[in-house]
Amino acid sequence: MALTGVLRPGHAALRVLDLEESVNFYGNVLGLIETGRDKQGRVYFKAWDERDHNSIVLHQADRAGIDYFGFKVANKSTLEKLDSDLRAYGVKTERIPAGEMLETGERVRFEIPSGHLIELYAEKKDFGNGMPYVNPEAWAVALADKGIAPTRFDHCLLYGPDIEKVQKLFEEVLGFYLTEHVVLEDGQTDLAIFMATSNKAHDIAFVRHPEPGKLHHVSFLLESWERVLRAADLMSMNRVSIDIGPTRHGITRGTTIYAFDPSGNRFETFNGGYQTYPDCKPLKWTIDEVGPAIFYHDRKLNERFLSVVT
Amino acid sequence: MALTGVLRPGHAALRVLDLEESVNFYGNVLGLIETGRDKQGRVYFKAWDERDHNSIVLHQADRAGIDYFGFKVANKSTLEKLDSDLRAYGVKTERIPAGEMLETGERVRFEIPSGHLIELYAEKKDFGNGMPYVNPEAWAVALADKGIAPTRFDHCLLYGPDIEKVQKLFEEVLGFYLTEHVVLEDGQTDLAIFMATSNKAHDIAFVRHPEPGKLHHVSFLLESWERVLRAADLMSMNRVSIDIGPTRHGITRGTTIYAFDPSGNRFETFNGGYQTYPDCKPLKWTIDEVGPAIFYHDRKLNERFLSVVT
Amino acid sequence: MALTGVLRPGHAALRVLDLEESVNFYGNVLGLIETGRDKQGRVYFKAWDERDHNSIVLHQADRAGIDYFGFKVANKSTLEKLDSDLRAYGVKTERIPAGEMLETGERVRFEIPSGHLIELYAEKKDFGNGMPYVNPEAWAVALADKGIAPTRFDHCLLYGPDIEKVQKLFEEVLGFYLTEHVVLEDGQTDLAIFMATSNKAHDIAFVRHPEPGKLHHVSFLLESWERVLRAADLMSMNRVSIDIGPTRHGITRGTTIYAFDPSGNRFETFNGGYQTYPDCKPLKWTIDEVGPAIFYHDRKLNERFLSVVT
Amino acid sequence: MALTGVLRPGHAALRVLDLEESVNFYGNVLGLIETGRDKQGRVYFKAWDERDHNSIVLHQADRAGIDYFGFKVANKSTLEKLDSDLRAYGVKTERIPAGEMLETGERVRFEIPSGHLIELYAEKKDFGNGMPYVNPEAWAVALADKGIAPTRFDHCLLYGPDIEKVQKLFEEVLGFYLTEHVVLEDGQTDLAIFMATSNKAHDIAFVRHPEPGKLHHVSFLLESWERVLRAADLMSMNRVSIDIGPTRHGITRGTTIYAFDPSGNRFETFNGGYQTYPDCKPLKWTIDEVGPAIFYHDRKLNERFLSVVT
Repeated sequence: MALTGVLRPGHAALRVLDLEESVNFYGNVLGLIETGRDKQGRVYFKAWDERDHNSIVLHQADRAGIDYFGFKVANKSTLEKLDSDLRAYGVKTERIPAGEMLETGERVRFEIPSGHLIELYAEKKDFGNGMPYVNPEAWAVALADKGIAPTRFDHCLLYGPDIEKVQKLFEEVLGFYLTEHVVLEDGQTDLAIFMATSNKAHDIAFVRHPEPGKLHHVSFLLESWERVLRAADLMSMNRVSIDIGPTRHGITRGTTIYAFDPSGNRFETFNGGYQTYPDCKPLKWTIDEVGPAIFYHDRKLNERFLSVVT
Repeated sequence: MALTGVLRPGHAALRVLDLEESVNFYGNVLGLIETGRDKQGRVYFKAWDERDHNSIVLHQADRAGIDYFGFKVANKSTLEKLDSDLRAYGVKTERIPAGEMLETGERVRFEIPSGHLIELYAEKKDFGNGMPYVNPEAWAVALADKGIAPTRFDHCLLYGPDIEKVQKLFEEVLGFYLTEHVVLEDGQTDLAIFMATSNKAHDIAFVRHPEPGKLHHVSFLLESWERVLRAADLMSMNRVSIDIGPTRHGITRGTTIYAFDPSGNRFETFNGGYQTYPDCKPLKWTIDEVGPAIFYHDRKLNERFLSVVT
Repeated sequence: MALTGVLRPGHAALRVLDLEESVNFYGNVLGLIETGRDKQGRVYFKAWDERDHNSIVLHQADRAGIDYFGFKVANKSTLEKLDSDLRAYGVKTERIPAGEMLETGERVRFEIPSGHLIELYAEKKDFGNGMPYVNPEAWAVALADKGIAPTRFDHCLLYGPDIEKVQKLFEEVLGFYLTEHVVLEDGQTDLAIFMATSNKAHDIAFVRHPEPGKLHHVSFLLESWERVLRAADLMSMNRVSIDIGPTRHGITRGTTIYAFDPSGNRFETFNGGYQTYPDCKPLKWTIDEVGPAIFYHDRKLNERFLSVVT
Repeated sequence: MALTGVLRPGHAALRVLDLEESVNFYGNVLGLIETGRDKQGRVYFKAWDERDHNSIVLHQADRAGIDYFGFKVANKSTLEKLDSDLRAYGVKTERIPAGEMLETGERVRFEIPSGHLIELYAEKKDFGNGMPYVNPEAWAVALADKGIAPTRFDHCLLYGPDIEKVQKLFEEVLGFYLTEHVVLEDGQTDLAIFMATSNKAHDIAFVRHPEPGKLHHVSFLLESWERVLRAADLMSMNRVSIDIGPTRHGITRGTTIYAFDPSGNRFETFNGGYQTYPDCKPLKWTIDEVGPAIFYHDRKLNERFLSVVT
């Protein structure tokens, strides 16, 4: 099979400071679809064009941030094999029973060197995207313009130490490949790495940062640059705190807005990127060009990029 | 590895009636980049944002059409394995030496039940996309507006008999998965099948047709719906024969123009689609809805769709 | 005053075969805003970004078509002057009292040589565009995505005889100027004329046609080519009969869809055009190029363009 | 005539510090068309889709800024009448002979209370937009992608004192009308005024500023939001200093980039706006909302907006 192993980013569990305020934000402003609430008080959302039951899970806590980031894998035997491969690599894995998250099968959870919890799972209920799987229309009218209405949860950018160890783990065990990276002055150590498990420009990314387990942003896909403008307009109307954008990243070429949810978690609504494959030599950015790498139009970082994380 | 086996459509070899007229068309009107000519008189092109040396190869012949459609595979051991798997499946394979096509490694060629020649290869020279792989700009100014300037060769739609056998072969041996299909009145036999080896909406497609080995279209990717308009404008200015478009396909949701090269080979310049994965249940279209499946706005086929092929 | 006299297309009164079906179409599919119903059973609509109370008025009749097309003029003294100028020109005018149309002042009505009834008025109630006139947001969220949601009623294309006399009247009395025209084989007689009273590419247009008083289309403005795609998608979802599009006109360069309301009245949803002024020499199209003049991509008329009118 | 009197912004004469550097910038980066050089050493440009010979004139000087901003009027008798009206209003006018600017007729020049020199003229040679006036194509391929390639010079935003006196002059003598304004805390005094002589959202604008005769920006029209992105990309590639953008203005709703030419003159490349007319009540912005009025996404001014002028 050509698309095997780890398929895609599946779910991100975010900590929010005020659950109902956040439910209103993710549901009405961002325009995700609420699909369930569990006994633990977690609220589940999916982007409208995703089929799986949930991709964003919110739970209330004292500090913002990300609890774990899960990837869907091809099937149960792949899940078993990856669990086994991880343990063989020296990574301690934990099994979370099916149903612990709503409509989600058993999960294999492990901590990576950057301090983040990553999960793998094979099953999540097919909730649908609002359209039949027989003779569907081109988009779901009732859903596609509710709030910002991104089509998919796309990736996370995570901050933490030891990202070179993370890269090795993701490449050797999980089958990811490097698409782009930013290299520090020594010419060897990466400040940032972007990796894919598909032909998307990235499925996960890391920036080297002293504190472990930090979230830079959760990212949502929009269908066009015009939808990016619409997103910025809706953020303005809803007084959402915009970090930067609309603008473009040099890395991935994506057109983007970075903004903050009510808890201070940064999220991104973006369009673009390019198709890439494991046979493509990774694009490299030198530290003197990290400005355009991140903010292509301004060609310089803002002070928040390297410091504001949750 | 998550993206393994067959990676992507790699090259299509087209028969054209007048080589220089075609070279002018593919180079100046479509805006592909000419990368070489070989001793056999074949002319090689790539879309500007592709890295590999060539994706479209033209050679002059008495009748238009497609000679073969090649896919890039992950590496040489994959090539060996797939060759072996094909022969185990009962498919006769032929080895074409490295260099027979310019800058291309050894190819495994085989005929599929629809009468088409398919190839697999592991190596094609990295020619580049006009930009460095270190600190690149967002796009190549010199290339991105020359003619229609699609970014990539995306797929082919091929016409021939026995497509259910083709599907079985592509699924069981080559690792493709079905993304969408059109089912005839009997509820079982497919008129059309769309298959992917990546998370693109399709990498190859077939329509059931009595004559074997026919080409419906060669397809090129544009970056936006606005670039589709620009393509239509340029086709008009250059008196290119437009079959239909700008319009949308229900299947894949892609926005598209079908038009004809000077030899009558149909080509497509499109944008859009959606990200899909092997765990997504294929979308089905019933024959009474084949109109919107193919031409979503008109909601009916034109007479050329089922009959004009090369 | 630089923008004086006749300002803009103000209202079009359409005959529909089934009022409630048409109210549903214009309100929910096209996405106009219903603003009133009068004792005569007429239903009033405006496009969401227009301020004036109404621009489209529907009333049920046995045959489809247009009853009259009204233009807003700068003020009441302008209305008086134009009435006087028309009569001096030999045109019989009729006064329709204020309030005969809801929220509309006194109208001066007259028949033009092509058989159409044209009106001029100075007052229509400021209903608003859904946003305050102090510190408004960029667009009205509740209105801008309801159905196709054009922003404005833009112009009409009318069919009838003696259009050269119409042109003379519009130029000499009403202050319009010719922006583009299609000339017949004799090099002198126009098949089509496009005239403006603003710096829009046209505010009214005529095609020479034996039957007087016919409507080719009522036209609505969309904000972008992407909104044209969205309009086509919504037409498809709502099984609206599309005449042609998305495509481009050579004349005005506008990107467009022509489609039919439930009564068979053709309407257009378009974007684009260019800014023009009275000092710009009109663009001329010769009859052999009427194909691209009307349908720029196909470069030929369809059989409906010259024959299907209401 | 409905579009009479003052028609449109016609030319802006800019002072640049290094002529050849600026010629390269305006010609190759911005993508204006150089149309002439005169004996005084001035270099003339037009945007590709303008017909008149020139709209931007550069001359080298010790300090950057704008020398004068000229408007085209309907015809010579209008020019005479406006000259006479200005003098009757108490404004001293000067006549500049035909040919003093290349291909331009006689100009009436006068100083307005904000310290700026405004000109009116009736004649400028029809240079063309690269396409014939008979059976033209939709756009000029050779011109439309050269650099940023705006289609038109659209307006200037000028800074100086006494803007209420300027408004009175433009309204009462020149026939402009107010479309939007920003009001200071006293509820009466305007910080900024936007006026039109057409149905564009504005043809000229002023911000109250202690220093007379200052230029905030010269503005150029782009055809879409996607062209705004392309402009930002090209500015980045050419290391143009971007002030802000891509973003949106609340005032006029235009989507925009502000950036600086090599001399520090700010220019704007924008798309959008809305159609307005003299019968539309002006939109008002209160000083507490000047943030979104100017920078709709950030909802706050940057420090440069009120201070950096030339």
